[in-house]
Amino acid sequence: MFTSNRPLNGPPWRGRLYEILFARYTGRPGPEGTDRTARAFDIVLITAILVSVAVVMLDSVESLAAQYGRLFHGLEWFFTIGFTIEYAARLVAVQSKRRYALSFFGIVDLLSIVPTYLSVLLPGTRFLAIVRVVRVLRVFRVLKLLSYVGAFRTLGWALSVSRHYVTVFLMTVLTLVVILGSLMYLIEGPDSGFTSIPVSVYWAVVTLTTVGYGDISPQTAPGQLLAAGVMLVGYSLIAMSIGIAVLSLVAQRDKQGGRQTEIWARVCSNCDSENHDPDAHFCKRCGSMVVDIGHE
Amino acid sequence: MFTSNRPLNGPPWRGRLYEILFARYTGRPGPEGTDRTARAFDIVLITAILVSVAVVMLDSVESLAAQYGRLFHGLEWFFTIGFTIEYAARLVAVQSKRRYALSFFGIVDLLSIVPTYLSVLLPGTRFLAIVRVVRVLRVFRVLKLLSYVGAFRTLGWALSVSRHYVTVFLMTVLTLVVILGSLMYLIEGPDSGFTSIPVSVYWAVVTLTTVGYGDISPQTAPGQLLAAGVMLVGYSLIAMSIGIAVLSLVAQRDKQGGRQTEIWARVCSNCDSENHDPDAHFCKRCGSMVVDIGHE
Amino acid sequence: MFTSNRPLNGPPWRGRLYEILFARYTGRPGPEGTDRTARAFDIVLITAILVSVAVVMLDSVESLAAQYGRLFHGLEWFFTIGFTIEYAARLVAVQSKRRYALSFFGIVDLLSIVPTYLSVLLPGTRFLAIVRVVRVLRVFRVLKLLSYVGAFRTLGWALSVSRHYVTVFLMTVLTLVVILGSLMYLIEGPDSGFTSIPVSVYWAVVTLTTVGYGDISPQTAPGQLLAAGVMLVGYSLIAMSIGIAVLSLVAQRDKQGGRQTEIWARVCSNCDSENHDPDAHFCKRCGSMVVDIGHE
Amino acid sequence: MFTSNRPLNGPPWRGRLYEILFARYTGRPGPEGTDRTARAFDIVLITAILVSVAVVMLDSVESLAAQYGRLFHGLEWFFTIGFTIEYAARLVAVQSKRRYALSFFGIVDLLSIVPTYLSVLLPGTRFLAIVRVVRVLRVFRVLKLLSYVGAFRTLGWALSVSRHYVTVFLMTVLTLVVILGSLMYLIEGPDSGFTSIPVSVYWAVVTLTTVGYGDISPQTAPGQLLAAGVMLVGYSLIAMSIGIAVLSLVAQRDKQGGRQTEIWARVCSNCDSENHDPDAHFCKRCGSMVVDIGHE
Repeated sequence: MFTSNRPLNGPPWRGRLYEILFARYTGRPGPEGTDRTARAFDIVLITAILVSVAVVMLDSVESLAAQYGRLFHGLEWFFTIGFTIEYAARLVAVQSKRRYALSFFGIVDLLSIVPTYLSVLLPGTRFLAIVRVVRVLRVFRVLKLLSYVGAFRTLGWALSVSRHYVTVFLMTVLTLVVILGSLMYLIEGPDSGFTSIPVSVYWAVVTLTTVGYGDISPQTAPGQLLAAGVMLVGYSLIAMSIGIAVLSLVAQRDKQGGRQTEIWARVCSNCDSENHDPDAHFCKRCGSMVVDIGHE
Repeated sequence: MFTSNRPLNGPPWRGRLYEILFARYTGRPGPEGTDRTARAFDIVLITAILVSVAVVMLDSVESLAAQYGRLFHGLEWFFTIGFTIEYAARLVAVQSKRRYALSFFGIVDLLSIVPTYLSVLLPGTRFLAIVRVVRVLRVFRVLKLLSYVGAFRTLGWALSVSRHYVTVFLMTVLTLVVILGSLMYLIEGPDSGFTSIPVSVYWAVVTLTTVGYGDISPQTAPGQLLAAGVMLVGYSLIAMSIGIAVLSLVAQRDKQGGRQTEIWARVCSNCDSENHDPDAHFCKRCGSMVVDIGHE
Repeated sequence: MFTSNRPLNGPPWRGRLYEILFARYTGRPGPEGTDRTARAFDIVLITAILVSVAVVMLDSVESLAAQYGRLFHGLEWFFTIGFTIEYAARLVAVQSKRRYALSFFGIVDLLSIVPTYLSVLLPGTRFLAIVRVVRVLRVFRVLKLLSYVGAFRTLGWALSVSRHYVTVFLMTVLTLVVILGSLMYLIEGPDSGFTSIPVSVYWAVVTLTTVGYGDISPQTAPGQLLAAGVMLVGYSLIAMSIGIAVLSLVAQRDKQGGRQTEIWARVCSNCDSENHDPDAHFCKRCGSMVVDIGHE
Repeated sequence: MFTSNRPLNGPPWRGRLYEILFARYTGRPGPEGTDRTARAFDIVLITAILVSVAVVMLDSVESLAAQYGRLFHGLEWFFTIGFTIEYAARLVAVQSKRRYALSFFGIVDLLSIVPTYLSVLLPGTRFLAIVRVVRVLRVFRVLKLLSYVGAFRTLGWALSVSRHYVTVFLMTVLTLVVILGSLMYLIEGPDSGFTSIPVSVYWAVVTLTTVGYGDISPQTAPGQLLAAGVMLVGYSLIAMSIGIAVLSLVAQRDKQGGRQTEIWARVCSNCDSENHDPDAHFCKRCGSMVVDIGHE
């Protein structure tokens, strides 16, 4: 999945910069896999991301914006400049600038800084201010570097194994809510808040997923009877769908001979190749150190 | 389950028409199982279904109906005539007209077009307009033809395996809500909205399924205590029922030696017979191509 | 669990009466296990139970009681007299009158008829009228006799296997709601509806179980933050508890070598003894026919 | 995990006191593991805890406080003095006073009595009164001594096995609610109650966890469409996360060869060492009796 974007040539500080910024996936870490500088950078980065997202969020609270607007403004520029320097450093450090810039995290990195600059040109646009919350996605970059790779891969694996079930399940739910919502529109009518089919379908989603806001709820006896039926169907559907989710995961795992749990355990620290033998210390493809990224 | 309704005699275009309209389940697809015409038809059909359902839904929104009523009316007739031609073509293409007309999808196909024609004779009936949303069920016909057959069969299998548990579970829930609802009616009385036993039972369903509208909620201390108990019972019931759902599915799968996962993988493209050997390329019953309908 | 209460002596019609009233658990059914009279009685009984419960429920709706009060009154006495005759017949049919009268279903049978008679002596007591809904429990007696025994036993088995987990789980939930409710009382105070600790604990139950009425909800920022935390804890708790439920059931099933699925399959129709060999046709204890009560 | 804090020297009554107060984890119980005095003490203690917590809770209800304030006050001091004597006794009984005082339950024991004494010095502080509900945690101490150790250890084991998944899952949920909440703030705006990003994020948590208070709910069509999407995502996320929870627990259990179920069954009554052979009657480390703490 991940192939290295490590600089193949250039001065040594460039390789070192890459190691710090993109950590684990490149650098041959020091003894016992601890690269102190990269780790320190990760901690600073994750703190900066969380604080800057908090600033964006709190800035939208009117009373706080009135009182601390100046502070929020200052912090916003402080973080934006910091993230800009980081973005530039990442561009310098990678081998292929284009590949980084067009990668998912490359785009997220860009979206994290552009709105602040644009807000100077186009003042007053609430939309721009909010785009900055995509910064929160950058937390995953750091998580990915830590010991959560295994868990992420399981999630991806589980999603991939059960994608057909999820599709069929969502299709069934969507069909159910269209038909049940329309039926409810017929039974209850606009007086109870079921003003149109789309609104009634919205009610059906709210009910079937057991969210149950209560902003729209049936008032007549037949409506309440149908609603009770919808709830019991939703209830059974949850049990059934979870049963099938578990079954498909267990079945797939058996089919692969439990392989999916083992694969994660050993990944090359340089080229991310997998399938290394349990006792391998070096990558059979590139000779880098093999790192244990399991869950224990 | 599905036996072919393919025309046994008649001109060749009739067989071809059947192949396009009922795809996969009949036609010997071209190389690599792609019948471009059938696929194109499926895409046109699914789009027409979704757009026509959207039109029915949006037409029920008063503000949109006032503004775009004329457009909706036009589109409605356009789709109705299209679906009518399709229905006629299906009738022509199949061997047994009666069997198609009385099949589930045959009835759905008819219900998709009749209301529009009836609306000319009986204007102003909201009921007729809404019957048309059954069109959404036709999406499943197309899905069935694509690669979701396996997932559908698992769902059917799981429902069939656990139908006794689902019955007992629903019986338990229904008994609980009748008794708890009556108890609540006794404790809270009409002042808190528990105006009758049926309404209180409705409240119990809303609470036990964790939907929780809040349109009726206990106001007295004993009522809130009982309600808290109901919620905890509902909570435990969900965990227990899912546990049993998983157990029964896993147990049944073990009993069948994991067979249910393999069967789906190979189905005859003509007669839908199953149980073909993993290396079979042609159906042992009718000699048609065996298609892989698995989930990978 | 169930040992026979079949009359050991007396005229033959008494044994026959027992067979009809208590079906399956006694009578040697006719060929292929169908006793037409017993089956017909079961259907009449289950209909009478459901209709009489419906009458009790509908009688509590003021508008219906005003209109159909006379009809409801008549039906109520009709069913009460019918159930009284049935109760007397059961007393006559069993070997030990005391054992039946003190059994769970014996008490339910009595509670189904006594309130109507008492209502003549003590008119106007709403409480008595509602006790009659316990009749709904009698449906389970009939279900038990049909093919749901297997599913009921699994439920009982699952509850027994996981009772320690359920206890610990409920203890954890109760401790959480007491502490979180108190904290919320401190943070939000009476102005947001958190008028006392018990009310706040009630709110915590409503939130943790994801019911979410919305009758009490946090209004201040710290309160909403804590509430969001409570919801995420509740969410994780559900996933965790279901995971453990499944694990404990699977573990216990493995320990018993899958025995719990097999046991249900073969039960003596007379003495309810279990553990018969798969090919046994007659009970090894009493020589009665062995009946297959499995789930397929 | 637990190593003994049993007094190594001193008069015999001190060892006996320790046995009664800390039961099971120390004392060599009498024949068949029943130490009548310790058991009686446990029952008195658990009753005192529950009654004292109930008093704290009921005292917060204004109407009850006005009527029974004097009784509550008396009971409060009665329990506080009782718990103080118990705390002193525990301090006397243990080998290392410091270790007990700084242990989790040592701090809980102290927090259970201090607020009442402080309330004399600092009258009228609602905060102090509420701290006393931490007493409810002391129930777990007694539970731990009874037959629930096995269930507690499974819970701990399950939490430890799936902690990476729980972290990733909560991270995903948190990221989702930040982004979806911000989007909703943009779409709905302050008129529908989405007054700021933090409030909108709070709404997203309420919706994604299917709590659904309904205090804030979308009013516009695009908002309701997005909300319906959020609900379906939340719904799928629950199914997926439970599937993964089960899978990880089953996988880990297989890896350990079902060991985690066996370990619990045999624990030394003195030193809490584990891994005793199934037929061992005495601890291989300290020679004390091995106690069966399983779940049957």
